[in-house]
Amino acid sequence: MATIPRVVRELIEAFERLPGIGPKSAQRLTYYLLHAPKEEAEKLAVSAMALKENTVLCQTCFNISESDPCEIDTDSGRDKSLIAVVEDPLDVLALEKANFKGLYHVLHGVISPLDNIGPEELYIRQILPRLKTGEVSEIIIATNPTMEGEATAMYIERLIKPLGIKTTRIARGLPVGGDLEYADETTLSRALEGRKEY
Amino acid sequence: MATIPRVVRELIEAFERLPGIGPKSAQRLTYYLLHAPKEEAEKLAVSAMALKENTVLCQTCFNISESDPCEIDTDSGRDKSLIAVVEDPLDVLALEKANFKGLYHVLHGVISPLDNIGPEELYIRQILPRLKTGEVSEIIIATNPTMEGEATAMYIERLIKPLGIKTTRIARGLPVGGDLEYADETTLSRALEGRKEY
Repeated sequence: MATIPRVVRELIEAFERLPGIGPKSAQRLTYYLLHAPKEEAEKLAVSAMALKENTVLCQTCFNISESDPCEIDTDSGRDKSLIAVVEDPLDVLALEKANFKGLYHVLHGVISPLDNIGPEELYIRQILPRLKTGEVSEIIIATNPTMEGEATAMYIERLIKPLGIKTTRIARGLPVGGDLEYADETTLSRALEGRKEY
Repeated sequence: MATIPRVVRELIEAFERLPGIGPKSAQRLTYYLLHAPKEEAEKLAVSAMALKENTVLCQTCFNISESDPCEIDTDSGRDKSLIAVVEDPLDVLALEKANFKGLYHVLHGVISPLDNIGPEELYIRQILPRLKTGEVSEIIIATNPTMEGEATAMYIERLIKPLGIKTTRIARGLPVGGDLEYADETTLSRALEGRKEY
């Protein structure tokens, strides 16, 4: 439209391209920034610009980091016998908040034949050299409990099995604070399967 | 947290400050940009940076524009006898899409005593000089049909009345494609009040 300044239109388009942001939200965000103090738009701009330049993939765990090897891998206070395999860096954040003290291995996705993503598109094989030092005693496969996550977990389990290292899968069951009545059947049957004796 | 690169944390914080974006969405957007092509983050950065520098407030209609006076005010094809008073620039967009061909006057807010916003905080009085040329024959008050929007509309109506210029209010009623059954009482009673003969 001729009535929107070009730069406003461009920012709306940039926001629209982000996941979960539709045309209306993109407009709202843009006009919010127009009214907000200049520093706010600048902060967004500067950090978006620096994002790629100031981050690297740690070549050990493939988490996004400021340095390679990353802070977690070089932290002597962490339990190096335990590696949690996760789908993406957000899962590292989630596990950190849950006080996990081991190391990570970030796959950057899941096996998904429908999206043309096979094991070779992910950082799966890269875990093998890490297991040869003899330091690792357990691999916790913490991919999401989705169909793709389960398939990826199974693939990794088979890959690691010949090495004789213990592999475990995070528990699936009712979320804490959840309600039996509202749980779906699969979750419930998993919760039953995974029951434990007092 | 020590485990997130500083620049990632900063972008998450910048996103979080935007309206309607919570901590989880801010994380998701940031990690999306980490995986997206570099150009995408750059486009967002460049347009956010240019946003304030390349836009001005038109000193006639107070719409956000690339030039002052703005494109709409200088467009000879528009009906200069009609001014729609709107709350903010997004409303100009909406009316443009609805094919409104007159001029605009953007208030940049509504009167809201609870938020300490009185008429002096808005661009209300600035409409008066525009009405003295004798070119304008009708003011359409198109503030939102909310409590604040109605109060602001009433204030403007009283301000303009002494000038003898016709003031109208956009119709309130059932939205097109809406359902009587799901309309709230106020909307329904407005729709009844505003009924028209065939």
